[in-house]
Amino acid sequence: MTDFVPTPTVPAPDIVRCAYMEIVVTDLANSRAFYVDVLGLHVTEEDENTIYLRSLEEFIHHNLVLRKGPIAAVAAFAYRVKSPAEVDAAEAYYKELGCRVERRKEGFTKGVGDSVRVEDPLGFPYEFFYDVEHVERLTQRYDLYSAGELVRLDHFNQVTPDVPRGRKYLEDLGFRVSEDIQDSDGVTYAVWMHRKQTVHDTALTGGNGPRMHHIAFATHEKHNIIQICDKMGALRISDRIERGPGRHGVSNAFYLYILDPDGHRIEIYTQDYYTGDPDNPVVTWDVHDNQRRDWWGNPVVPSWYTEASLVLDLDGNPQPVVVREEKSEMAVTVGADGFSYTRKTEGEGAGAVEQKTGFKLGAQL
Amino acid sequence: MTDFVPTPTVPAPDIVRCAYMEIVVTDLANSRAFYVDVLGLHVTEEDENTIYLRSLEEFIHHNLVLRKGPIAAVAAFAYRVKSPAEVDAAEAYYKELGCRVERRKEGFTKGVGDSVRVEDPLGFPYEFFYDVEHVERLTQRYDLYSAGELVRLDHFNQVTPDVPRGRKYLEDLGFRVSEDIQDSDGVTYAVWMHRKQTVHDTALTGGNGPRMHHIAFATHEKHNIIQICDKMGALRISDRIERGPGRHGVSNAFYLYILDPDGHRIEIYTQDYYTGDPDNPVVTWDVHDNQRRDWWGNPVVPSWYTEASLVLDLDGNPQPVVVREEKSEMAVTVGADGFSYTRKTEGEGAGAVEQKTGFKLGAQL
Amino acid sequence: MTDFVPTPTVPAPDIVRCAYMEIVVTDLANSRAFYVDVLGLHVTEEDENTIYLRSLEEFIHHNLVLRKGPIAAVAAFAYRVKSPAEVDAAEAYYKELGCRVERRKEGFTKGVGDSVRVEDPLGFPYEFFYDVEHVERLTQRYDLYSAGELVRLDHFNQVTPDVPRGRKYLEDLGFRVSEDIQDSDGVTYAVWMHRKQTVHDTALTGGNGPRMHHIAFATHEKHNIIQICDKMGALRISDRIERGPGRHGVSNAFYLYILDPDGHRIEIYTQDYYTGDPDNPVVTWDVHDNQRRDWWGNPVVPSWYTEASLVLDLDGNPQPVVVREEKSEMAVTVGADGFSYTRKTEGEGAGAVEQKTGFKLGAQL
Amino acid sequence: MTDFVPTPTVPAPDIVRCAYMEIVVTDLANSRAFYVDVLGLHVTEEDENTIYLRSLEEFIHHNLVLRKGPIAAVAAFAYRVKSPAEVDAAEAYYKELGCRVERRKEGFTKGVGDSVRVEDPLGFPYEFFYDVEHVERLTQRYDLYSAGELVRLDHFNQVTPDVPRGRKYLEDLGFRVSEDIQDSDGVTYAVWMHRKQTVHDTALTGGNGPRMHHIAFATHEKHNIIQICDKMGALRISDRIERGPGRHGVSNAFYLYILDPDGHRIEIYTQDYYTGDPDNPVVTWDVHDNQRRDWWGNPVVPSWYTEASLVLDLDGNPQPVVVREEKSEMAVTVGADGFSYTRKTEGEGAGAVEQKTGFKLGAQL
Repeated sequence: MTDFVPTPTVPAPDIVRCAYMEIVVTDLANSRAFYVDVLGLHVTEEDENTIYLRSLEEFIHHNLVLRKGPIAAVAAFAYRVKSPAEVDAAEAYYKELGCRVERRKEGFTKGVGDSVRVEDPLGFPYEFFYDVEHVERLTQRYDLYSAGELVRLDHFNQVTPDVPRGRKYLEDLGFRVSEDIQDSDGVTYAVWMHRKQTVHDTALTGGNGPRMHHIAFATHEKHNIIQICDKMGALRISDRIERGPGRHGVSNAFYLYILDPDGHRIEIYTQDYYTGDPDNPVVTWDVHDNQRRDWWGNPVVPSWYTEASLVLDLDGNPQPVVVREEKSEMAVTVGADGFSYTRKTEGEGAGAVEQKTGFKLGAQL
Repeated sequence: MTDFVPTPTVPAPDIVRCAYMEIVVTDLANSRAFYVDVLGLHVTEEDENTIYLRSLEEFIHHNLVLRKGPIAAVAAFAYRVKSPAEVDAAEAYYKELGCRVERRKEGFTKGVGDSVRVEDPLGFPYEFFYDVEHVERLTQRYDLYSAGELVRLDHFNQVTPDVPRGRKYLEDLGFRVSEDIQDSDGVTYAVWMHRKQTVHDTALTGGNGPRMHHIAFATHEKHNIIQICDKMGALRISDRIERGPGRHGVSNAFYLYILDPDGHRIEIYTQDYYTGDPDNPVVTWDVHDNQRRDWWGNPVVPSWYTEASLVLDLDGNPQPVVVREEKSEMAVTVGADGFSYTRKTEGEGAGAVEQKTGFKLGAQL
Repeated sequence: MTDFVPTPTVPAPDIVRCAYMEIVVTDLANSRAFYVDVLGLHVTEEDENTIYLRSLEEFIHHNLVLRKGPIAAVAAFAYRVKSPAEVDAAEAYYKELGCRVERRKEGFTKGVGDSVRVEDPLGFPYEFFYDVEHVERLTQRYDLYSAGELVRLDHFNQVTPDVPRGRKYLEDLGFRVSEDIQDSDGVTYAVWMHRKQTVHDTALTGGNGPRMHHIAFATHEKHNIIQICDKMGALRISDRIERGPGRHGVSNAFYLYILDPDGHRIEIYTQDYYTGDPDNPVVTWDVHDNQRRDWWGNPVVPSWYTEASLVLDLDGNPQPVVVREEKSEMAVTVGADGFSYTRKTEGEGAGAVEQKTGFKLGAQL
Repeated sequence: MTDFVPTPTVPAPDIVRCAYMEIVVTDLANSRAFYVDVLGLHVTEEDENTIYLRSLEEFIHHNLVLRKGPIAAVAAFAYRVKSPAEVDAAEAYYKELGCRVERRKEGFTKGVGDSVRVEDPLGFPYEFFYDVEHVERLTQRYDLYSAGELVRLDHFNQVTPDVPRGRKYLEDLGFRVSEDIQDSDGVTYAVWMHRKQTVHDTALTGGNGPRMHHIAFATHEKHNIIQICDKMGALRISDRIERGPGRHGVSNAFYLYILDPDGHRIEIYTQDYYTGDPDNPVVTWDVHDNQRRDWWGNPVVPSWYTEASLVLDLDGNPQPVVVREEKSEMAVTVGADGFSYTRKTEGEGAGAVEQKTGFKLGAQL
């Protein structure tokens, strides 16, 4: 682990929150049907190549940009910073890091002004902006409120081979850790990091990367998420429900993972907790705790561990994927090589019973 | 299939609803902890050998009797009939059927009066009673209302090898079919049958039997069921969550299956539909439709198909289990021998594309 | 009270449930906007004069007919009976009662066949039918499921001056009482009566009548009702929310009362309880109990007591309204002439403290 | 309005959030029954004079201190600051403001360390602290999760005569306005102000003050709030439900107001929106908009406008109450002197129809 990211001497940009993701989709009509007709995101603006979408309670131009292109991938993870000057700060920060940086006063997407995009040290296309067009916040437009309404963009999730390296980079950038998954050998499998006062604005999942694991939208209540499942059943696309619904151990949120027509993963998420205090307690989970990923012990499907979206460099070419060298969470927790437990060893000390109790392996034949 | 149950010449007893189940448990304290402390059923009365439990909105003495005994099993599936005279009718009916019948004016369980118990043609211990002690209906005792409150007994589910034979027997007894699962060869895998105006008072699941598949309690809303999962996670007994939560295809109910300390299966269930009209449409599901058991296509765990509780004869001895000879639902839908689809063949006629689309097989390594 | 309805010597028709209401509206487009666009009822069929609507889980042609006409009123309270022969029974029954009766083999509304309509002893236009066109039951059409979805017709509510007389008439007709409101002088203010296994198919509210107090549709959960309020706020028609949402004392249901463009009152209702046992306990409420109408003690607005819709005779003319001679619930419970209490007298016997405690009078200036 | 608060030259303390309130109650056992048995707040610690309570997801020692005393009143509105140094900043800030200031290294309440309390320019007892004992965060203790669980302290609400003066004072202190209520004459009736990323940490309500209007706790979902009403009905204390449940116009939250045994007002609150962006749009409501206080137009009871709790000075004596000189929201919106509308004037300019449409006046006789 010699490849740690150096900490720049200039201040990190003051990030407010994750704000939008730009994704490339291969069939815009199919993607529109999914995000607008099935999920009910609101169209701020669209043309033949691009659709700008937002969640109900958003007041900035968009939370998601669908852009037509030849290869399904992610073009940008965009963060809003606290002021116009922070865009300058971002530019200086990444330049000092030796990253490729591109500044556009007119922005990279409609509705967004002065922005900087970078190829960050982990290989992800990060964007920072402050200037943005305000649009109607639909919070009280209950005449538009669908039974499975998505009300906020909640977070990103990124796959990267070296989680401690990524964690240090994001901590330098001002993110704070809320939770992580480790084992007793000190291997970190995943980490959740935030700027706004929720469990995360982004998370790092250990795996081959850089890749985009998922983007998450929040609903108000749990029944809204169940309705999304029910609707996907009614539309006979239940095979696009990948995992859940369930209750996360990490974050405590009620969740669902679904796949868009290109296989980009979307999480629907509700009810994590407040993290705004400076000494917010960090929660560390044992990778062998079978309730860490699903509080009810329901098994994680393998695709959730292995599949993710490519990310693009600033020229629009896919970043090469680097293989994770450390242990894989899937391998250490399931199957012949792994184990999990529902309850910890009973007792402690000399007489302790080494009885890590069984867990539900979803052996579905 | 020569072994059809004859239809008696005397009238069937007029059954109102499934009313209670008597189960034998091997450790009464453990079972009390599960049903009272975890699930929150209300104790009407208890002594050192027996606990009488009811759901919040019940006004009869009990919906569940836990009796201490050497072998975990079911002692009675008890139905309430419309009047005292219908207990006579039940006695006459089963006598003509040639079944073993036992009448007790003082009842078989506390709080219940004149009753008849039978070993029915399928080998199940059925009870019929009218007289019962009324107790406080706790409907508006919101001071006792837990976050995962069970408000009504909803139904029984029985495993029997020959579903069409069982269906005919129950139809003769006055039950009406609401839904079933078949295949194109005419094999019936399961059938749902009701007296009260819900999808079922009991269901027959094809398999080795007679065995008890589960007993189901209803909650008011879906979040109540989620709370039960969350609580089992908090108590680190998530390995007793067997399947779900999910949305059933059959019945449309939101469901959860959990296991008591003896492995007796409990379903928590909410929001099926009204079936009280005489021409209520019967819904037949294709066994290969991957949304029939779970509307979201989540896989059914094998244990759900294979495990069930023994049932007792009137002497308290376990009934021998007869092996199902027809095809098994598990075998025809998953694995090397089976298949399922999420969407049916596209198009019809000569140009139809024979494209039964894939389903989620829960291959969890 | 000499005017009791005689009990016929012929059997009453076997009624299954309340099935639909036909109402006359003065502006069909306005009413369509309300019932279809705001409330989301599903259009089975419509023409320039009439709209046939049903709830999500209904499989018969309609639950509500909107017919254009000069005077807002109710043309029929229609019940489904158990078989075609029961329509004959209804005709004979009302003929013996001396009521005006009209039989139409082709039905009075589209989708319904052989029917009989009567001017019943209380002056209400009752209809009885069995034959009806089956339509798609939308139960699992979650792609159509709105956030405030109405899933079932639940009940009617009728205003009549002499509640005991009406109660006897309906009991003779086969309805069973679930709850009522009385005072210590033996005055009955209202009564709830059912055929299906819920708290009511219809209720009688003491007041000037015959008039239609409301028709009620059920939702699955409480949040669906809250969404209807939120949507009416968003549409700036909150002044059409008359009362609620709240929790009923009587029936225990979560409720909301709203007014259609003609002032016809609609209740949205969820989660009453099972009443199907023959000895289902009857609940009698004291008229002075301030939690009887709203379990939270929130005041009933006067219009809810005083306003109701006219009903039509079989020629389509409004029935004359007869004034209630007994005490009015509003007068005995609020204001200078009335009183209510939240808690009963403390203690009993000689030393009892006559301390009926105060209640929330909604004196809004 | 000459009495504006001067802006200090030293920096304001960096406040994180509202953290706890200390209230004086006259009967500790009664208050315990209310806050612990009815509302289910969790006891961190208690002795014969004081009870320290926290909400489910809290990790600091308490959110509410109940202290036994002769006069029901509020002893402190306590805010957490970002670091120990910010307590120094608070001390300096208020000293420069000329306020009475008391610093206690050992804290004013158990579990809290170095703190400063002040009599602020509006007459309120404000506290600032950083050091605090961490306790078990019960977030995933679903075994303790009640049906009406309070999960977070959300905000305070203070009554003050001069709202613009108070607003300036709080803006100087670093609070940002999210919403307010004004009229066309420029009178401000109330203002909502936040530090954390919700609609408010505190709000100012125009009226005779300084007084404490309410303290608010958040639930996860709306049904949790309904359960609190249902439980208060079951306990026959529905007369302690003062207002609601309802949907706020301001903040968009679902709300309920209840009264503790001393008349201290508690709000139960859920689902407002994210306010963390620097340019979060401020919403200004017209005082005559009948949906501002309740989105469904349900009337505000007069007591909600007129009643509030006394606040104490640093010697424990009640602060004198100063009468508001500006117009009262109640007077301008209801009754002979006021008016409200549900929909605005139709059209604009010369031909505009001056048709402010009616609203629901809760004339309950």
